[in-house]
Amino acid sequence: GPYLGAPVPQNHAQVTQGKSKAIKVFSLTNYTFGTKDAMYEKDHSVQERFVRLRKEYEKFGMRRYVDGVLLVHEHKMVHVLLLQLGNTFFKLPGGELNEGEDEIEGLKRLLHECLGRPAATPEEWTVDEVVSNWWRPNFEPPLYPYIPAHSTKPKEHRQMFIVPLADKAMFNVPKNYKLVAAPLFELYDNSQGYGPVIANLPVALSRFNFLHF
Amino acid sequence: GPYLGAPVPQNHAQVTQGKSKAIKVFSLTNYTFGTKDAMYEKDHSVQERFVRLRKEYEKFGMRRYVDGVLLVHEHKMVHVLLLQLGNTFFKLPGGELNEGEDEIEGLKRLLHECLGRPAATPEEWTVDEVVSNWWRPNFEPPLYPYIPAHSTKPKEHRQMFIVPLADKAMFNVPKNYKLVAAPLFELYDNSQGYGPVIANLPVALSRFNFLHF
Ligand SMILES: [Zn+2]
Ligand SMILES: [Zn+2]
Ligand SMILES: [Zn+2]
Ligand SMILES: [Zn+2]
Repeated sequence: GPYLGAPVPQNHAQVTQGKSKAIKVFSLTNYTFGTKDAMYEKDHSVQERFVRLRKEYEKFGMRRYVDGVLLVHEHKMVHVLLLQLGNTFFKLPGGELNEGEDEIEGLKRLLHECLGRPAATPEEWTVDEVVSNWWRPNFEPPLYPYIPAHSTKPKEHRQMFIVPLADKAMFNVPKNYKLVAAPLFELYDNSQGYGPVIANLPVALSRFNFLHF
Repeated sequence: GPYLGAPVPQNHAQVTQGKSKAIKVFSLTNYTFGTKDAMYEKDHSVQERFVRLRKEYEKFGMRRYVDGVLLVHEHKMVHVLLLQLGNTFFKLPGGELNEGEDEIEGLKRLLHECLGRPAATPEEWTVDEVVSNWWRPNFEPPLYPYIPAHSTKPKEHRQMFIVPLADKAMFNVPKNYKLVAAPLFELYDNSQGYGPVIANLPVALSRFNFLHF
């Protein structure tokens, strides 16, 4: 969409951040949200999830999972957009790659499925730098931000990317989810509430100098 | 120094990491370690530290502190080089910038002071990308990987950088410190042992694809 005003950086964005890479974030109020058909998880229980992971691992090898990190600002703080299911489950927009699918192309497809307008295309999304990587050494819940010792064959690799947003956009949210904006201080050191991948985003994002527009 | 053999990536480095930026790490056995005169902390107690921080903040504004992240591999795992003082205090090589000093130039000066050979110069060091940023909102111990709400004037900013090592090198360690190589799994989720800055390095480093040479 058209940009309707001069950029006005907030005071806090002017604190020196040395050599950090600059990333633009826009106000949450720049974005509008519609709804669309429900989007269902592929597995109906944790047990089912690991049964399918094991079955697919034997057939296709390591699962590859990609997530998008979409950032906005509100009351002068950077917030991460999260999909909320029920009261306690939060996920980043993203999902499993198909066999042989490129990470960037796959993430664009998944962002379109999670948040796109029906009339839009995956190519409307932009995918930028890697934020973090996580590995699952076993057919079990624990994930680590490195390949654990003695695990030469991780069962799943998760990769998070910065997804720069246009200055204005409309997102269509599956009707069984809510889209929420979580401030970094809410996520930091809160693995119990958000799981390790999301709770560690503030650390993984700290290398950037966020310019608030 | 001269490179004495063909690079042989380990198996684990060949696990696909998608679009992650590649960084070379060499074996710990490529490096040798000498000693030099002791290097003393500027403050003799935690209380003294915050008294000096407050005094200097009033005079010069926010303190700027930079650290180097030096990586090696050992038994197929990435390790971070840490300076150990006594049994329980660990720090990255680095320190406080002088007023107006450039981050990169200052870190080279501090690396030379912490680990350089007397005959060497700060310009022998290379400083690469930002790994993470941490802020101290008050004249108190807590640091956060973002500028906390209502803290428009942080008292200290700490910035960590990748410091790529040559394939072979000699470091001179102040005789009151030990230089240790800590594997990522030892640091991860271990703020109690290493403090939040070092304990969160595995997350901040997870975006890289480490190529083991
Ligand atoms: Zn802002
Ligand atoms: Zn908020
Ligand atoms: Zn190795
Ligand atoms: Zn080791």
